[in-house]
Amino acid sequence: MDLKKTIRSIPGWPIEGVIFRDLTTLMQDPEAFRESCDIFYERYKNKDIDKIVGIDARGFVFGAVLAYKLGIGFVPVRKKGKLPYKTIQESYSLEYGDDTLEIHEDALEKDDKVIIVDDLIATGGTIGATVKLVRKLGAVVMECAFVIELPDLNGRQHIEDCDVFSISEFEGD
Amino acid sequence: MDLKKTIRSIPGWPIEGVIFRDLTTLMQDPEAFRESCDIFYERYKNKDIDKIVGIDARGFVFGAVLAYKLGIGFVPVRKKGKLPYKTIQESYSLEYGDDTLEIHEDALEKDDKVIIVDDLIATGGTIGATVKLVRKLGAVVMECAFVIELPDLNGRQHIEDCDVFSISEFEGD
Repeated sequence: MDLKKTIRSIPGWPIEGVIFRDLTTLMQDPEAFRESCDIFYERYKNKDIDKIVGIDARGFVFGAVLAYKLGIGFVPVRKKGKLPYKTIQESYSLEYGDDTLEIHEDALEKDDKVIIVDDLIATGGTIGATVKLVRKLGAVVMECAFVIELPDLNGRQHIEDCDVFSISEFEGD
Repeated sequence: MDLKKTIRSIPGWPIEGVIFRDLTTLMQDPEAFRESCDIFYERYKNKDIDKIVGIDARGFVFGAVLAYKLGIGFVPVRKKGKLPYKTIQESYSLEYGDDTLEIHEDALEKDDKVIIVDDLIATGGTIGATVKLVRKLGAVVMECAFVIELPDLNGRQHIEDCDVFSISEFEGD
């Protein structure tokens, strides 16, 4: 199926000049949600992955299903102040301001093979900070996986030394 | 397995006098994560459920897996300002302050049979507001499902007219 047809485009949100790609309509569509998750699973099922890292909060949706299907653990990367145990932090610039991400310092082990999952890659600040967090813990980023990529925003510049996979793209953003 | 043994207890977080139950350690444990998700799936697989509603943000982890396994759509309830389309809102008091939750106004259809999923029920403010949001859209709350319940905080008082299921409990909180 054409997954992009299940995504709602919202011009002018959260700020003027941006077309926001709303993946909640994809998640609500049983076939589109299943197909997105299955594409990730088929791609990684024989790659001997140790952990899935999901980015707060829509990355939790796709990342948790992938971890479950692979039979491995799920690790959340969260906005500052949300994780209760000892964390390490990374600040970054994103499309609409600045932010800080955290991961629990014992969430990954050295040499763990990790897939990082988020719903969308836009300008790439969030994924760039997440890659740094994972590597600070000594784990290996095998690939960064997204449902949607906005290639015109060149988010890959923040993760040039990573493999990147996106299921689909919106051009002209 | 004893799921509770995989949960980390953090005294004094986010405020003094509280013991925070940190389910990230359960999610990171492949067996505990799988078993939690499977318990939910076995409970609801023959109940003709239409949608899973997951509460921002840890409810996304367990709710998304349940929706995927049931082959139905996943609907996020989010903190104010996070959902890009038209929403309805509910404010509530929670253990450590006030907050407002939102759901997209077209996320559920009238008479949809819904399970609401979160990781934990404590004082119950969050789930109380979520039940109201789901009902405002005309959908039917079949059950509220949690991995962990803290019965001493009597969260069920906010959802007395709902069926409630929790996999496990921590008493003495």
